Amino acid sequence: MGSTVMSETPEIAHQLTWIAVDWGSSNLRAWGLDQHDQVIAQASSDKGMLALKADEYEAELLRLVGDWLPATGTTKAMVCGMAGARQGWLEAAYLPVPTRLDQLSQGAVTPTLTGDQLGVYLLPGLSQTRGTAIHFDVMRGEETQLAGLVADTPDFTGLACLPGTHAKWATLEAGAVSGFSTYLTGELYQLLANQSVLKHSVLSPSAARDDLNDAACREAFISAVSEIHQAPETFSSRLFGLRAQDLLDGRLPAGDTRGAVLAARLSGLAIGLELAGACRECPSDKPITLIGNQTLSQRYTLALNAMGYQTQHVDGDTAVLAGLRLAHRALK
Amino acid sequence: MGSTVMSETPEIAHQLTWIAVDWGSSNLRAWGLDQHDQVIAQASSDKGMLALKADEYEAELLRLVGDWLPATGTTKAMVCGMAGARQGWLEAAYLPVPTRLDQLSQGAVTPTLTGDQLGVYLLPGLSQTRGTAIHFDVMRGEETQLAGLVADTPDFTGLACLPGTHAKWATLEAGAVSGFSTYLTGELYQLLANQSVLKHSVLSPSAARDDLNDAACREAFISAVSEIHQAPETFSSRLFGLRAQDLLDGRLPAGDTRGAVLAARLSGLAIGLELAGACRECPSDKPITLIGNQTLSQRYTLALNAMGYQTQHVDGDTAVLAGLRLAHRALK
Repeated sequence: MGSTVMSETPEIAHQLTWIAVDWGSSNLRAWGLDQHDQVIAQASSDKGMLALKADEYEAELLRLVGDWLPATGTTKAMVCGMAGARQGWLEAAYLPVPTRLDQLSQGAVTPTLTGDQLGVYLLPGLSQTRGTAIHFDVMRGEETQLAGLVADTPDFTGLACLPGTHAKWATLEAGAVSGFSTYLTGELYQLLANQSVLKHSVLSPSAARDDLNDAACREAFISAVSEIHQAPETFSSRLFGLRAQDLLDGRLPAGDTRGAVLAARLSGLAIGLELAGACRECPSDKPITLIGNQTLSQRYTLALNAMGYQTQHVDGDTAVLAGLRLAHRALK
Repeated sequence: MGSTVMSETPEIAHQLTWIAVDWGSSNLRAWGLDQHDQVIAQASSDKGMLALKADEYEAELLRLVGDWLPATGTTKAMVCGMAGARQGWLEAAYLPVPTRLDQLSQGAVTPTLTGDQLGVYLLPGLSQTRGTAIHFDVMRGEETQLAGLVADTPDFTGLACLPGTHAKWATLEAGAVSGFSTYLTGELYQLLANQSVLKHSVLSPSAARDDLNDAACREAFISAVSEIHQAPETFSSRLFGLRAQDLLDGRLPAGDTRGAVLAARLSGLAIGLELAGACRECPSDKPITLIGNQTLSQRYTLALNAMGYQTQHVDGDTAVLAGLRLAHRALK
């Protein structure tokens, strides 16, 4: 079933106060929390939105957290992510920006359940509609990670970046999201590395995961970021240039190192294009907050620092849990 | 066999002087020419480089043009394209730019044949190596289309664009290619339209082929070209914005028209990114020469004219034949 349950002691049911859930497209993670908002149990499964019909969510959640629940009473479950999409459990309509991040739970919807052990709140995503095409945008799941920034600092102001398949950049002003942009960076990289003519030149992305520990790869990555940051209009020609370099450049190393260097360059081109767009109005005197896993955040840190921007990192899991805690508190 | 032979009259063998061949990755086209360089026979097959081993080229060419050949003597065949690649029939090493286009045949190679009916000349491609990564580039096949411009005007000077999967832009100075750049435009469009998250929003490219006859599609296309031409750094976010627009924009038409409008927009984003790079040094008082098929050239003409550039169009087949004629004359 691809699921893990990390704690099943009988004490959980006595301590459990509520349940936090991050339900994405391809997986589901749940945490059991006590009255002090401390995690006392954790479970996950690969039953994301893409694997479930609307009437299968309740059973899947109960399968995962059922053992934690007290014999009587109703336990609240705060859920963020794609479970609240139109194709998910029940649609939690997007809240239009600007939206205060401590008020996400005001847009939550509560699906009708067959049992009374759980009370489920599906949090909404955010949408942006401002007339012209450039300003249409949506997020679902990331808003709760952003809310994590506000949990400790209610008036948080600054620029946050959530790297990924569809990387999000959000401007926060006094605890509210005032605007955001999504960049197709991760998907663009995967398509080019695996399915374009460049697949003959770059080492497959999974094999090149830790390439930035290598000096030649790091240099190729930073150089590509810098080239595109300075001249984003050259993106499409530098893509083909990477293939031509593989054919013509005698100075490239041989074997897997060659493919890793060119993969690092491709990653730099894709991320550089994102930064060229996202950093047009970046402050250089205030850190950009990166929210996400360690590996990808390090890659963005390297790129942003090389471009002269400061960064700080918040772990993605920490952020989403903090955001769900904030939403739970706001519900009470 | 996926081949067509358009003329098989017995007179061909009496009139035939030489054979022109455009041998690409996925197909092969041959023309029989008389002493006045007029086409008197034509044949094609789907046996491109990707379908052939090195020792299969001679038989395939003979299968296609054998009926044209006189009983005695050796007939010259001028061949451009991927047949001269390292993975082709025999490698015709790239000529480095700058290269005069009337001297391509100086780099031709002659594969050893089993019979003596044909004398085959494989024309070389062009390469560009200038130290930094941005300047690595290669072409193979397009140089012969460019040579077609020089056939009538030996001192041709100007900018030429060959739209396609890997679009080429070449600067010609007094009959020589002084530099060129390849843009991954067509491949980028196909990957995004067919394999990315955008596939849910855009009508499949084949269905949308003639979309620019529709006013709404034309407007979406030109608007996208203009947005990216002005702000190429927004390319990656406007890609996702297209998906968000599909989800949020109530003004979009319904049904297939909606998908066609969004496909036109995607095409405009991809071509706009190319133009942003290629037109950095475009002259606005001299026409850009588009070489290629009617449909794609019309799309580029629309985009370039909207950006304030003049264009002229040369048919791709006409150009490659003219280039092969020039190479044949230079050989004598």
